[in-house]
Amino acid sequence: MSKEDPGYSGLILIEPTSHSVASLFKIRKVLVTEKTPYQEIMFVEIEEFGRALIIDNLIQSTERDEYIYHESLVHPAMLIHSDPRRVLIIGGGEGATLREVLKYKSVEEAVMVDIDEKVVEFSKKYLEFMHRGSFYDDRAKVIIMDGLKYVRETPDESFDVVILDLTDPYAGEVAKPLYSEEFYRDIYRILRDDGVMVTQAGNSFYYKDEYEYVYNNIRKVFPYTAEYWVWVPSFNYTCNFVLASKKQDPYEFTEEMFADRLRNRGIETIFINPSKLIALLKMGIIK
Amino acid sequence: MSKEDPGYSGLILIEPTSHSVASLFKIRKVLVTEKTPYQEIMFVEIEEFGRALIIDNLIQSTERDEYIYHESLVHPAMLIHSDPRRVLIIGGGEGATLREVLKYKSVEEAVMVDIDEKVVEFSKKYLEFMHRGSFYDDRAKVIIMDGLKYVRETPDESFDVVILDLTDPYAGEVAKPLYSEEFYRDIYRILRDDGVMVTQAGNSFYYKDEYEYVYNNIRKVFPYTAEYWVWVPSFNYTCNFVLASKKQDPYEFTEEMFADRLRNRGIETIFINPSKLIALLKMGIIK
Amino acid sequence: MSKEDPGYSGLILIEPTSHSVASLFKIRKVLVTEKTPYQEIMFVEIEEFGRALIIDNLIQSTERDEYIYHESLVHPAMLIHSDPRRVLIIGGGEGATLREVLKYKSVEEAVMVDIDEKVVEFSKKYLEFMHRGSFYDDRAKVIIMDGLKYVRETPDESFDVVILDLTDPYAGEVAKPLYSEEFYRDIYRILRDDGVMVTQAGNSFYYKDEYEYVYNNIRKVFPYTAEYWVWVPSFNYTCNFVLASKKQDPYEFTEEMFADRLRNRGIETIFINPSKLIALLKMGIIK
Amino acid sequence: MSKEDPGYSGLILIEPTSHSVASLFKIRKVLVTEKTPYQEIMFVEIEEFGRALIIDNLIQSTERDEYIYHESLVHPAMLIHSDPRRVLIIGGGEGATLREVLKYKSVEEAVMVDIDEKVVEFSKKYLEFMHRGSFYDDRAKVIIMDGLKYVRETPDESFDVVILDLTDPYAGEVAKPLYSEEFYRDIYRILRDDGVMVTQAGNSFYYKDEYEYVYNNIRKVFPYTAEYWVWVPSFNYTCNFVLASKKQDPYEFTEEMFADRLRNRGIETIFINPSKLIALLKMGIIK
Repeated sequence: MSKEDPGYSGLILIEPTSHSVASLFKIRKVLVTEKTPYQEIMFVEIEEFGRALIIDNLIQSTERDEYIYHESLVHPAMLIHSDPRRVLIIGGGEGATLREVLKYKSVEEAVMVDIDEKVVEFSKKYLEFMHRGSFYDDRAKVIIMDGLKYVRETPDESFDVVILDLTDPYAGEVAKPLYSEEFYRDIYRILRDDGVMVTQAGNSFYYKDEYEYVYNNIRKVFPYTAEYWVWVPSFNYTCNFVLASKKQDPYEFTEEMFADRLRNRGIETIFINPSKLIALLKMGIIK
Repeated sequence: MSKEDPGYSGLILIEPTSHSVASLFKIRKVLVTEKTPYQEIMFVEIEEFGRALIIDNLIQSTERDEYIYHESLVHPAMLIHSDPRRVLIIGGGEGATLREVLKYKSVEEAVMVDIDEKVVEFSKKYLEFMHRGSFYDDRAKVIIMDGLKYVRETPDESFDVVILDLTDPYAGEVAKPLYSEEFYRDIYRILRDDGVMVTQAGNSFYYKDEYEYVYNNIRKVFPYTAEYWVWVPSFNYTCNFVLASKKQDPYEFTEEMFADRLRNRGIETIFINPSKLIALLKMGIIK
Repeated sequence: MSKEDPGYSGLILIEPTSHSVASLFKIRKVLVTEKTPYQEIMFVEIEEFGRALIIDNLIQSTERDEYIYHESLVHPAMLIHSDPRRVLIIGGGEGATLREVLKYKSVEEAVMVDIDEKVVEFSKKYLEFMHRGSFYDDRAKVIIMDGLKYVRETPDESFDVVILDLTDPYAGEVAKPLYSEEFYRDIYRILRDDGVMVTQAGNSFYYKDEYEYVYNNIRKVFPYTAEYWVWVPSFNYTCNFVLASKKQDPYEFTEEMFADRLRNRGIETIFINPSKLIALLKMGIIK
Repeated sequence: MSKEDPGYSGLILIEPTSHSVASLFKIRKVLVTEKTPYQEIMFVEIEEFGRALIIDNLIQSTERDEYIYHESLVHPAMLIHSDPRRVLIIGGGEGATLREVLKYKSVEEAVMVDIDEKVVEFSKKYLEFMHRGSFYDDRAKVIIMDGLKYVRETPDESFDVVILDLTDPYAGEVAKPLYSEEFYRDIYRILRDDGVMVTQAGNSFYYKDEYEYVYNNIRKVFPYTAEYWVWVPSFNYTCNFVLASKKQDPYEFTEEMFADRLRNRGIETIFINPSKLIALLKMGIIK
């Protein structure tokens, strides 16, 4: 006389993966649901993944696998630059991109520009294991502002590295200008002459056209580009990245060169290592 | 270049309807998720239904349709009794069953016994539109205690009406003894000689055997019984009730008699009226 | 070392219940999936419900509970008519509405008009337990044609009873004219002077405005109308009906009158009986 | 007056990804659903993925992305062998693994042993684009038999390469012995002295313990092993592989050596190339 539980009962997140594919995650607890002027944000606890930030129903980072995404976003760009001192992060409200950037002792200032102060406020409160205090580091400067505007108003050659930690290029109207040729021209302008840029770029298999739009825009502006991707389990697909640089061809790097830089700079990571860096660059993309 | 939303993205409640059927509801907001010693409770806002109490993933009441359930539970039992003065409610933590009982001016005391103080605490905080202050009525006495124990320890012939507002008979081990022959014998004992009892009884179509177990247990104890059901939209099925009485056969009531009692007692309702009361008793059940 | 099955794995039908509510059914087998010029049809086997016809992702009838819908659609209209000889069914491709109509020995001809010959073809093949040979009864005349056109071209006063067994009023553009005032005027015209009409009308709780549109259109045309509904488990909501008549007020019928007619006409049913007929008429609707 | 489609309505495949994660795919058409003595098989058409074989609710291969899985399974093993003449495939009922093996002109005989003749029968009928006639190649020998038994009864040193194309190690009791130390000892025995074996091994992130069980069993038997994985979109996770060899260390291969072998043997592929082969070996696994 007991009701068989048919399985997925309870609170579920249905995350769209593509036009016709979605993923189901069991939600253990909902900490915050908030509609900000820019997006809908949720801080939740997901079975098997722990605490997570969700924006517009898309998982941004989870306790269990955020290191894969954040290390893959930050280190290739930081490592191919010979001496990164000033770094700009657009987006990245969780503070984990900032955390990875601040691992580099050469960094004198890391400016993080996020449009949504609520994301930063709640990340400080609920995601200590992600930012690990980096918001309070003396070298960190957090600015609540539209990244487009910030970049437009920044003087020429202000940064060594620019890291774009944004929602997917197909995540809505807000995202679109942040993947436009015009925006990349502005970033090129504010980068110093050996500057490096990296952006996450969604998924090139399910969103081939959107990915190509992004990649082609970057290629029109930067002389050197590289494509790579990693599987982020909680995204339920692989995340593509495009790396771009003014002077340094990423493909010239060898495993030994990456090993030297990681060792010399004292960078400790969970996912990224010299062997994986080469693998990322050699893997090509899936369309 | 925009991601087509494949529809059900976001926070969803999957509520089991039967062994192989379930219902999906869009969740707008989660107010509380709490694991108590007895059950998992959630207070949420559901699209089209408003605020709701959910216990063990089953919707208990929602802002939009709770009146259907609570009026159908309370009024048939109260109306067939000639003069209900002392009323016992087991369960009913939302306070809405209490609200309906207190509409009767003849009621001198309404004792409500709920095992889970968290349900009562959060209902007071979040479900004002359900209890409408009834928790604070002088005639109301709320006791946090196991209903089984309360009934066992109550002296003979203490109540005129007993209302069982419990989770489904198949909702788990906790529910089982609350639908047992032994429990109904105790209730018979504490009812005065013209006493009336009513219980919700889950759904007789998807849970035929469990329903019959409940109905047969009641028939072994009470001389008069009646079966009825209503459709509660947020349950995604009809809710069955069993009415039982020591002296009064519910089927002897006519539409005029119900109309007289409702008028004389000044009871105002949204769903229940004399015509519907007759319809409920004439409808029979669906197996 | 075994993979826990998280429950709802496998083939599932997600049936929309309303704008934000849906139902999940486990599918055991898919017999046919076919896109016809009018709709998408599926014949499947559903857990707990058996064989079923699905049109545009909405369950139309299932082996286990079709009798509730078909008996409730047909018998009130047939019983309040004093001598139904010619009956018109629009829709009803499963043949089960025809089956119920042919139970009346007074019926000399039952014309069934369905727009989609594929529904009829596959129903003959897969739903024998629904039509039970009624397609092959000498009194049955099946016409593949647009119901609107058929009604428009039919001479005045051709039928005693018209039964509209159509997809929901909100199921798409095709459905709309079949619930319009104009269509009801045509039906009024082709009914004899004591003629009766009945239509299913979707659900009045989730689709209040659409239901009222239908109900008001009928009231503009017919002097007598009655509203009733039944819970059809596989619809996961209650199905509303509107009964309309030229001369006979349905509410004048007593339980005894229904009992006499059922007995005299030798009608055997599973769901419908005199008590339930009164209950249906006394229940009112839920908005 | 139209019903808003809440998105995922219709026929859906819910594929379990892990204990608490699942994936939703829209199903366009169901060609076959069949319960064989060994498993439940379905041949369906999936939106964005085309025709697919599903076993026990897990997608095995789809038209759009099967090349990623099959090329990744077959070519590393075939390429590190200096002269593969006799190849054994266990499982692989779709015929696509056979297709990749037969690309090697050195292959004199490819024995494919699948336990379920229904999978082979329906693959021949519905998956021509997968097997591309390889079932009818003179060098192919298809045996319907339990792979365990076949391996046990095969004489010593019969094969150059053994390819295990099986359901996931955690897919049920049937799968378990096919990932046991005992089974790998048998395979070692039937491999010639420079023999190579490869097996798919499920996913090491969601099923870490199960993956390690497989990997450790192989390491107890073979002197050289390599781990790699690819993302297969329709699996909604990455698929791990373990490569094992009696004499040749896979990690000694350079990009040039892979390029030479691919060129000399005239192998044409969509996914696999020398750069990706190095990337696979350098990527390491994710737990």
